[in-house]
Amino acid sequence: MVISADGGQWSEEQPELSLGCRGICGLQIDVKGPETDLHSGQFGGAVLNPIHALVQLLNSMHDSDCRITVPGFYDDILPLSRDERARIAAVPFNESTYKKSVGVSTLFGEKGYTPLERLWVRPTLEVNGIWGGFQGEGSKTVLPSEAHAKITCRLVPDQRPERILRLIASHVERHASPGVKATVHLSDHGSRAYVVPANHPGNQAVSAVLKELYGKEPFRTRMGGTVPVCDMFLRRLNSYSVFLAFSLDDEMVHAPNEFFRISSFRRAQRAYCMLMGMLAKK
Amino acid sequence: MVISADGGQWSEEQPELSLGCRGICGLQIDVKGPETDLHSGQFGGAVLNPIHALVQLLNSMHDSDCRITVPGFYDDILPLSRDERARIAAVPFNESTYKKSVGVSTLFGEKGYTPLERLWVRPTLEVNGIWGGFQGEGSKTVLPSEAHAKITCRLVPDQRPERILRLIASHVERHASPGVKATVHLSDHGSRAYVVPANHPGNQAVSAVLKELYGKEPFRTRMGGTVPVCDMFLRRLNSYSVFLAFSLDDEMVHAPNEFFRISSFRRAQRAYCMLMGMLAKK
Repeated sequence: MVISADGGQWSEEQPELSLGCRGICGLQIDVKGPETDLHSGQFGGAVLNPIHALVQLLNSMHDSDCRITVPGFYDDILPLSRDERARIAAVPFNESTYKKSVGVSTLFGEKGYTPLERLWVRPTLEVNGIWGGFQGEGSKTVLPSEAHAKITCRLVPDQRPERILRLIASHVERHASPGVKATVHLSDHGSRAYVVPANHPGNQAVSAVLKELYGKEPFRTRMGGTVPVCDMFLRRLNSYSVFLAFSLDDEMVHAPNEFFRISSFRRAQRAYCMLMGMLAKK
Repeated sequence: MVISADGGQWSEEQPELSLGCRGICGLQIDVKGPETDLHSGQFGGAVLNPIHALVQLLNSMHDSDCRITVPGFYDDILPLSRDERARIAAVPFNESTYKKSVGVSTLFGEKGYTPLERLWVRPTLEVNGIWGGFQGEGSKTVLPSEAHAKITCRLVPDQRPERILRLIASHVERHASPGVKATVHLSDHGSRAYVVPANHPGNQAVSAVLKELYGKEPFRTRMGGTVPVCDMFLRRLNSYSVFLAFSLDDEMVHAPNEFFRISSFRRAQRAYCMLMGMLAKK
């Protein structure tokens, strides 16, 4: 058994037992048009702008219901059972608090699913970065030679990263305008999604620790992010990982000013000591 | 009368008499989503990615025939007369040489018009720059807080820059997703297109100089680019500008490694001396 300190608590007053995480795969699209940057007056109207080609390509990957339109993308996904949906629905989600914490006026995502379902058990295709042409102050009338985008997908059981990347690469090949050359660079740092049974002995021990520590039953959650090593341990060592972790949603993970509360370090020290005792008794 | 040295020669062996240039207007679109960059696993699926919103917005500005879909964009354009089209068609255009010089396999642009028409007498809406999220080596699983694009349009008679900018701003307002805030910053460096009659006395003198210098009649062309001061001189001083200029299409105007041939400096010196003599005789 493996214990992962990567994960989180629901809030400082409410524990959670995380039963899995999404997988991930990534790629970069490089769109090359004319040999060099061109004058947009001299050439604009006759030569395809690689930014336009990239925009069209990226736009072709979602429909207006925020569904991913890459053919085959959803094919291998295990259907969401009624029980699973009920379990997720049992976790309270306050949309207005959530919106306020993120600083947006509207939530957004795949039609037909609740926000927590979209965050935990539905996949995404997200453009993490885009660039091309002139980005400085003022204006430069350039028709650029190149445009680029970085994409990662969050995956759910039983999507395989290698297959998803191949599907996206085929989609790019089929949809790239003939006026440009679109090249796809697949990242080899992919991971499948990971799920651990709620009644795994490790989870029983974690639940008991959390209940004692907070005085409350933990919510049964999933992580939207990815802990690639969990899938690796499961498939290579045949060992489940359980999560006992204390980060909080407002701690700016992977973003500027990331932080971790000192109180969470202290709580984690207690929790891990308690877990060792709990496991020793089993 | 004004003489403009901004313009070009058709080739080193073939002179051209330019009878006008396109206008220009520009703007920047800033799309703001969540308060700060977010973890794409933790938040991906519930929060609209500003890059996606920007991509959708930009994609909504052209249709599959490369026509600009901003409502009203074409409204004020003077219809292209049969004579004008014939005059443009009389200028030889070698598509395969052109494609080779630019380094593209296919030309691209508004359906129903020849490449020279699209370059000279049809407007464009071109994304000159785009940026958002992570652009470095490797991958960063970020759902960015912002995404940006710079746009310029080349305009033709009688489009007015201020009106075109207002139309684009309205289009952005109507098409921006409710999940983000899209702000438009209009540039105040616009210019209308400019046209000068072929039989203007200045053009008669320029034609005579060019004929003597190259031993050939000049092609009657337009410039795809913009010389804003020509429209300003015409409307403020009531003075036409004529073009006597020597740049060549391969000189990377506004692009890396821009250059100008020394032989063109020498030819221009002779041409301007001849023009002074020619005008003195009138």
